[in-house]
Amino acid sequence: MDEVTRQNREHTLFSWSVQSQANPIHMTGGQGVYFFDDTGARWLDFSSQLINLNVGHQHPKVLEAIKAQVDTLCFAGPGFATGPRAELGTKLSEVTGLAKTFFTLGGSEANENAIKMARHFTGRHKIITRYRSYHGATMGSMTASGDMRRWPVEPGMPGIVRVFDPYCYRCPFGKTPDSCGRECVSHIEEVIQMEGPQNIAAVLVEGITGSNGLLVPPDDYYPRLRALCDKYGILLITDEVMSGFGRTGTYLSTQHYGIMPDIVTCAKGLTSGYMPLGAVIVNEQIAAYFEDHMLWGGLTYSGHPVSCAAGVANLRVYEEERIFENVREQGAYLEGRLLAMRDRYACVGDVRIKGLFSVLELVRDKGSKAPLAPYGGSSPEMNALAAYLKAHRVYAYSRFNFLWVCPPLVITRAELDEGLAVYEDALAMLDRQLLGVAAD
Amino acid sequence: MDEVTRQNREHTLFSWSVQSQANPIHMTGGQGVYFFDDTGARWLDFSSQLINLNVGHQHPKVLEAIKAQVDTLCFAGPGFATGPRAELGTKLSEVTGLAKTFFTLGGSEANENAIKMARHFTGRHKIITRYRSYHGATMGSMTASGDMRRWPVEPGMPGIVRVFDPYCYRCPFGKTPDSCGRECVSHIEEVIQMEGPQNIAAVLVEGITGSNGLLVPPDDYYPRLRALCDKYGILLITDEVMSGFGRTGTYLSTQHYGIMPDIVTCAKGLTSGYMPLGAVIVNEQIAAYFEDHMLWGGLTYSGHPVSCAAGVANLRVYEEERIFENVREQGAYLEGRLLAMRDRYACVGDVRIKGLFSVLELVRDKGSKAPLAPYGGSSPEMNALAAYLKAHRVYAYSRFNFLWVCPPLVITRAELDEGLAVYEDALAMLDRQLLGVAAD
Repeated sequence: MDEVTRQNREHTLFSWSVQSQANPIHMTGGQGVYFFDDTGARWLDFSSQLINLNVGHQHPKVLEAIKAQVDTLCFAGPGFATGPRAELGTKLSEVTGLAKTFFTLGGSEANENAIKMARHFTGRHKIITRYRSYHGATMGSMTASGDMRRWPVEPGMPGIVRVFDPYCYRCPFGKTPDSCGRECVSHIEEVIQMEGPQNIAAVLVEGITGSNGLLVPPDDYYPRLRALCDKYGILLITDEVMSGFGRTGTYLSTQHYGIMPDIVTCAKGLTSGYMPLGAVIVNEQIAAYFEDHMLWGGLTYSGHPVSCAAGVANLRVYEEERIFENVREQGAYLEGRLLAMRDRYACVGDVRIKGLFSVLELVRDKGSKAPLAPYGGSSPEMNALAAYLKAHRVYAYSRFNFLWVCPPLVITRAELDEGLAVYEDALAMLDRQLLGVAAD
Repeated sequence: MDEVTRQNREHTLFSWSVQSQANPIHMTGGQGVYFFDDTGARWLDFSSQLINLNVGHQHPKVLEAIKAQVDTLCFAGPGFATGPRAELGTKLSEVTGLAKTFFTLGGSEANENAIKMARHFTGRHKIITRYRSYHGATMGSMTASGDMRRWPVEPGMPGIVRVFDPYCYRCPFGKTPDSCGRECVSHIEEVIQMEGPQNIAAVLVEGITGSNGLLVPPDDYYPRLRALCDKYGILLITDEVMSGFGRTGTYLSTQHYGIMPDIVTCAKGLTSGYMPLGAVIVNEQIAAYFEDHMLWGGLTYSGHPVSCAAGVANLRVYEEERIFENVREQGAYLEGRLLAMRDRYACVGDVRIKGLFSVLELVRDKGSKAPLAPYGGSSPEMNALAAYLKAHRVYAYSRFNFLWVCPPLVITRAELDEGLAVYEDALAMLDRQLLGVAAD
């Protein structure tokens, strides 16, 4: 352990960790889909850090824009107008079709403020969210989440009602594609009836569920959910922190499904993480409401000029370098490769993918679908998988029985191939462990 | 209104505002205690933006450090060790005497995580906070606040119990200096008894109350409060977001009073706002607890390399430029000037100051102490005061019947004189309005 790592361990605390088990890599630099550690080793980043580094490590155009803004105006309070705030606010209206943006620093605060705004705008209190969801770690956004990370902070904010997810591989309603009646939407209407439509401010859902298994909804899920919200005057808030801003090849994942949410929250891909930034983007009606009603929210760094400048530069890279086209092209290739893995390896139960947002769901047995690790837990096999990828310098995100593939959106086919070869070796190793035989 | 301001108004939402009344200044640059607007006008910043810009606008050393870090490594996930994270974590242990730091992006998230940690470490649920307090706008920190800004989001997080403040000018216990028995501390013991000591995780207080009237406690307040917490095994958490990191001439305001908190939260002055950063700093026992217990908190940008680098550079400026000595020197001068104002102007009821953290409490009448605006409200006189300062290009923070003087810590006596002259003219104007006569 080098001195920097030792000091990190001795003087700082690591997120979501038992500290004695934290084993951080000392990152010293990066370029594109790769980063480097203090030993000089090069790692292939197959999870874009925390699924945020969409333009890859150290993109020169974003770095230059940040430095230029630092020289011009590094800070202005949230009550000031600034150039980068104007430019990013205008751009966000353009790419989302919504009206106005409230800037935060990350996804948690974005969801906190979206909930506040929805409650004040509608005059209603309850918020419907989904079980398999993560909306952030502050009290409001953590409680809004279904993720088990909320358990240790409960009881949290009152007023959350949870519904089931469009998890077709393990349908909570026991349905198959043949028998499905889109109960994942229709049961929400029953919940609305039982909670009282007049009490419900919003349905808050991740555009596409991220850290709880990447659940791509059926194509008509959103049109049905949108119609349901409209029927009862309930706002639809989509949390696009992970799924938005290029990850699936569009600005908003709901743009694949032809519907408009009333409020969008975002972060991560908004600046690719180069600077901390989150946002709540609201439609015309909500913006109009706050013209003559107090917006009860704020933070010192709302509209931070450097964060906004990073966002502007990042979105410009998306356009100038035709990043979304690359997502569609490489995403199609990745989908083929992942589906082939599902066919080839016994431990791959399901593949879910949209653009470069993808996951392998791992099982002990394809017939029983027994997960390779339980919800909220781990297993020797999943630990071995993570260790294998780490030993081969592929930085990947795994949790429970899920293994994600979410590389920077600038990735080439050759770079994808490099990482997927390691994934395949790891899956073959798992199959040998599980079956006691070679996979092929 | 120029185009940038128009776009800010049209496409972004402003904190704590009825949007149609937001009248933002378009800031184009700054230097030291001054900033500039799009008309070329120069403003004297007498509130360090939101009491965060401690080293003043565009300090070249901090700007250079940020740009250097951007070139080296602009982002690493929260699970990585990085150089700036090591350096800042080590430095924070040194200057606070505490053990380990968990990095957030601002004060709200710092307080959210401090509350979580205190609850998990103690196994107790209730948190005691004070009525005249602000701890942030996310659900946990907003509910922990006493500030009226919590009203519109209630009911919030359960488990908060509120006590009274050391507000000597308007003692909630009806005491005077002669009759005072430090009921501001002793009543907390009665609350502890009635709530059950075994149920109380922590007392959370601002080091020195900021936006609720800058309430400087009596010198023995903290030693008494520390002893009370020790008696019942309750953690003492001090929120040093405003009052820490140089504002009063020390790293922590409690260093004036010779006590150690168990947890410190900070933000603002930690980087002077050049980059978003907050921190929770915990003592050895709490750090040890999390060695073998999960820390249930995290965020994508925890330990952001550029934010940490900005913090390191900012603290280096504090030391290299002997900023704290300047705070003590200019603070003493400012105190003399403010006390003279209290003697001279009928509308100045009280002056409270520690270092360059100061406020004037304004009244209609010194005898009755009738406030110049009610709690939570405004008045024609306070609006006239704010308008006068704005018209004279002095950027100042006022709220209810309070007017703050919190300039960047690099301010010179001549620059203080420049702003104080405008303040005096404004107070004289108020006196004329209130009394119908000239003040002198």
